[in-house]
Parts: sequence; structure tokens; C-alpha cells
Amino acid sequence: MTKIEVGLGSRSYPIHIGPGLLDRTETLAAAIPGRDVLVVTNDVVAPLYLERVCNTLSGFRVRQLVLPDGEAHKTLATVEKILDALVNSGYSRDATVLALGGGVVGDMAGFAAACYQRGIAFLQVPTTLLAQVDSGVGGKTAVNHPQGKNMIGAFHQPIAVVADTDTLGTLPDRELKAGLAEVIKYGAIMDRPFLDWLELNMSDLLARQPAAVAYAIQRSCELKARVVEMDEREHGCRAILNFGHTFGHAIEALSGYGQWLHGEAVAVGMLMAADFSVTRGMLNADEAARLRRVVEAAGLPVTPPALASSAFMQAMAHDKKVLGGRIRLVLLRQLGEATVTDDYPADELGRFVTNALEEVAS
Amino acid sequence: MTKIEVGLGSRSYPIHIGPGLLDRTETLAAAIPGRDVLVVTNDVVAPLYLERVCNTLSGFRVRQLVLPDGEAHKTLATVEKILDALVNSGYSRDATVLALGGGVVGDMAGFAAACYQRGIAFLQVPTTLLAQVDSGVGGKTAVNHPQGKNMIGAFHQPIAVVADTDTLGTLPDRELKAGLAEVIKYGAIMDRPFLDWLELNMSDLLARQPAAVAYAIQRSCELKARVVEMDEREHGCRAILNFGHTFGHAIEALSGYGQWLHGEAVAVGMLMAADFSVTRGMLNADEAARLRRVVEAAGLPVTPPALASSAFMQAMAHDKKVLGGRIRLVLLRQLGEATVTDDYPADELGRFVTNALEEVAS
Repeated sequence: MTKIEVGLGSRSYPIHIGPGLLDRTETLAAAIPGRDVLVVTNDVVAPLYLERVCNTLSGFRVRQLVLPDGEAHKTLATVEKILDALVNSGYSRDATVLALGGGVVGDMAGFAAACYQRGIAFLQVPTTLLAQVDSGVGGKTAVNHPQGKNMIGAFHQPIAVVADTDTLGTLPDRELKAGLAEVIKYGAIMDRPFLDWLELNMSDLLARQPAAVAYAIQRSCELKARVVEMDEREHGCRAILNFGHTFGHAIEALSGYGQWLHGEAVAVGMLMAADFSVTRGMLNADEAARLRRVVEAAGLPVTPPALASSAFMQAMAHDKKVLGGRIRLVLLRQLGEATVTDDYPADELGRFVTNALEEVAS
Repeated sequence: MTKIEVGLGSRSYPIHIGPGLLDRTETLAAAIPGRDVLVVTNDVVAPLYLERVCNTLSGFRVRQLVLPDGEAHKTLATVEKILDALVNSGYSRDATVLALGGGVVGDMAGFAAACYQRGIAFLQVPTTLLAQVDSGVGGKTAVNHPQGKNMIGAFHQPIAVVADTDTLGTLPDRELKAGLAEVIKYGAIMDRPFLDWLELNMSDLLARQPAAVAYAIQRSCELKARVVEMDEREHGCRAILNFGHTFGHAIEALSGYGQWLHGEAVAVGMLMAADFSVTRGMLNADEAARLRRVVEAAGLPVTPPALASSAFMQAMAHDKKVLGGRIRLVLLRQLGEATVTDDYPADELGRFVTNALEEVAS
């Protein structure tokens, strides 16, 4: 088992990574402050792991809430169901919400924990690669608004993250690949040697070779923890973690949430951001091409769906990264080095998007 | 104009108290970070002050949202309307939510600001005495759940509080008195000389004598600021500010939100808490009687409505102050000194409530 500490003063917490952690009471229960736990999961994960988690927490008063699976349900209405469950259980401020599942479950359960009685403890037990390397770490919680992804949420750090790598054994291939998109992201924005390693070990990762997968998770969490420690509330450098996300969110929003997996949209978004970096003269075209090869090797999509560029631009403008009317983008200076900027001619982005989408249509 | 600083490190902010502040751009606009402002108010306050506030902010892009008045509307559904207005205005992270009104408007607008894009700036412009002395200061935001008051919310400090004392001129007598309940509370829990002053000046306060009202607001804000600075997130001593609130919340919840004003319920709740302090042998009966005289002099109710004691106990157990199944109460050791405790025989509280409610019924 590997343990990574996220150092945030009184809000510090450990990330535990390793096999068999769902059965280890000493790991799963260590951070729980009281005796009341609400396990929030979905109808795909519940048959696989819910009973095991409840058994491991047999010393606690455990209630369960099983939500429908999918990004389409990541709404304020579903968060209300979690809040109802907490109220109906008679849970007070010392209760804990345990999120068992992927990013959607974690985002909603975390937001409910942030809001219930103005904030109760929240334990992340991510069961997808994406949640283990990205959404489960760092305290961002949110739900979607019909007009924009993650528009409603809170910063609410978990009391611990318990990533049982065995749970990835039941993950569909498509979701494994979607998680790899965020793993590749860390290499692209801040760790070129890690990107090199990913390129070399991509077939092992796709074959779910345990040591390779464990290292990919560990390195991703280390990198994310480092960024979050520097800028917990995204006033500055944390924004580089959004690499590919502004383009990606537009793809997700316009395709209807749930058609594209988040990681798939981010994969294409990263390539669009890299291409725009080339257009801006910031990034060498060879480097963008290399990033595309890594994304392709992970079995991820590399081109956006056929969408109208005007709608695409509007969806990008609705993204949270917009500040004072300008779309802030995370661009690459080189592989392993990202920068956040809104310093580009507005029409240049419009032309770039139009060209990128026309290439798809033709 | 008086200025009180709430010292919370990077979240510090000023409270401005004085006449005519709604017209002073340099006060109202000083803390607003961007150019986009959503003014949230209700249909009672809007005809009185909305246009003036918008004129004062003529240099900004101002949108307005007028909500229906009353505690009955303090729900997640209304917060969703505020979030919709922010999204539909195309507002981004540098926008500001301005709450113009009483505690209900402030609680909801503040919670919406806390959640929108994981937190945007929030300016409190309280127009009721209760909001100027209590709910507008300290960063607590929340909405009610059908089964409990303020069950869903966030700690989200404002960027400034602007309390224009002229706005109290249009306040109905009943609301002025409700605000005085919270003013009396500060004296009762932490400042006996202030309680003496209140007793001496109650007729001036009820007659809205400007200097008396201004001093009552100023002293209340100073006292609240001191507590919030010590314990922003209510892990400890801040809980004394809930004096009278656990009993009071039960009255509010069982009477249907909006029948009793919050301050009225708190007034009765304070007297019940004082009487229970006497029952517990902590407080001298003379002191409880004196508190009752002050509350009575403010024209506030001093007896609970006729309610079933079992329902009352259940409503108290649903209050947020419950920890680990025990009802934590704020009790008095003497006038000017409160303590938070769950160290009492469980059946003793039950008997006390039964007796108190039976006295009303008989």
C-alpha cells in the first residue's frame, strides 16, 4: 500500500492506494469521526462492492443510498436525495458521507457533505481510474447546471481517499481508457518523464498490469496533491489541471451529458488545446503530434464530434474558466509545461475552432 | 459612520454601520471585485430600496432578482432560481451577489454565492435589524429542509456588510422587536453591561431613536465579530450564539415556518433555556426573571405556543446542534455568561419541556 499526504494544514488528509483496501477496516475506518456513515453509490457499483464496504464498517451505524448511474443524473435534484437521506437518517454534524464509485458519485456525495449542516465529513472511496487519479483528490465537488458543467458546487476536502486498485478489475475498458486521459494530462502539463513512462508502458496499462496501474495512480496523485497544496481554491496555478477541459466541456455539453465520457472529451480537448498552442506559436507541432500519439495509443478519441462552431464557442464561453468575459485557456509551452492565458486575439480562437470542426465534418 | 473589522485572515471584511449608506458609492462599491453584480432582494424590499441601490452601482453591470418575501420560501428551490439567474446572466467567477433585505434574503443569496462556480463574492446589505445585528454578519448561509431549519448551507463570508440604519425606518414594529431579541441575546450570553444598557434604553430603541439604535447595532456586531473571529466554523465557542435557538427552532418548525418570526421564537427559546438553566441549578431564578422582563419590555412573546411536548422534543432532536444523538444546549451560568453542554439527564429535559408546554395549555 502506498500513502500520499495532501498537505493542507488543518484540512490535510491521506490518499491510500493499493489492493484489497475495501476489506481493511483499519484503513477505511481510520478517519471516520463519529459512528454514523451514509454510503452513497450507484446501481452499477452497488452489486459489486457495497456489501463488502458495509461489512468492513460493521462497527458503525451505516445507511446506504444507491443512485442511478451516469453523468445525466449529476444534478441538484440528485444531491437533494442525498440530503434527504441524511435528514431522514437523523444524522447530525458528526456523520460521514462515504462516496463509493466514480467521479459522478464522488462529486455529488461530496457536494451533499459540503452542504449538509454547513459541512460534514466526507470519505472518498473511488472505484474508477478517473476518480482515483483525479476527481477523488483535491476537494472539488459539483453538479451540472443544464447550461454548464460543474456550475454549482463547493470546495470540500475529503477526510481521506481510499483507492482500492482491485476495483479497477471490474471497470469497463472504455472507462479505463477515459481515466488514462487524466493520467496523460498530468504528464502533458507538468511531468515530461511521466509522459515518457506512459508512452513506454501504455500496453501494460491497457492490459491492467497491477504494478503499472498502481504506479500511474500514485504518480498522478502525487502530482495533483502538489498542485492542490499550492493553490487549493484555484486562484492561480491549479487552473493548469483544467488542461483540455474547456474544449472538453463544450463537447460534453453539446453532446448531452453522458454521451461522451468525461475522460474522452478531455482527451480530444487536450489535443485541441495542444493544436491551438501550436497555432499560437507556443508549442512545436512535433510535440502536439506526439501527444496525439500517446492519446491514440490509450485507445481514446482524437477528433471532436461534428458540431456547429458557433454553438461550440458559446458552450466554451459558458465554462467556468471564463473570467471577465474572456475565455481563459490552459495551453502548452512544451510537453510537461502548461500555462494559463487569455492573451490571444478573440477571433483567432473562433477561427481555430471553426477549422477544427470543419475538418471533422469534411 | 462606524466601521467594524471582522478579522479572519484572507477572509477579513468590514461592517459599515450608519445612515444613508445605500447612496454612498464609495462604501457600497468598495469591495466589489469585478463589474458584474446580481442584486437579490424580495418583493417587500424591492419597491423601497432596489432602485436606489442600482443607481448607486451605476458603474457596474447590474442584474436584479426579486424573490417572494418570507421564511416559507427559504428553500433549495429558491436558491436554484438565484443560480439560474447567475447562469442566465452569463456571470463568471468574478461576479458578485448582493443581498438586499433581511435574514432570509441574505441566507439564500449567500448560499447561492457559496455554490455558484464553487464560490463567488457576496455583499451583505441588510435592511432589517435582525440581519444587521446577526444573520448578516459571520458567514453562515443556509436554507431550510422540510424537516429542519438551516439544514442545508455553507460557511461563506461576505466581502463586506453595509448596514444602512435609515432602512430601519420602514421596518414594521413586529420585525424591529424580532431583531431586538438577537440584540438581547448578545447581552445575555456575553455582555452583562450591554444587557443593563438595553434595559435602560429599551423605550428609546422601540421609538427608533437613531443614536440608541446605532449603538445597539454597533455593540451587537462587535460582540458577534469577536466570537466569529475566535471560532469561524463553530467547532467550539461560536455555539453560544445559538442561545435560545434550539428551543426556538422547534417553535418555528412546528408552527410552520413563517408563522412565528425567527426573533420571536428565539425570544421564547431564550427564556426556556434560561428556565432550564434554573432547573439545572446553574442560574439564579432572579436572573431568569430579569431576562424575562427585558424580553417583555421589548414587546416580544414570552411563552411558547400550545404544542405537544413529544413533537417539540422530536423537533429539538432534529436541530443541527445535536451531536452523537445528544441535544446540546446553550445554558446560562449567569446573565452575561453562557455555556454549551449536553451534560444533563435526558429525561430532565423531557420533563422540563412537558411542564413548560403544559403551563401554556392550562
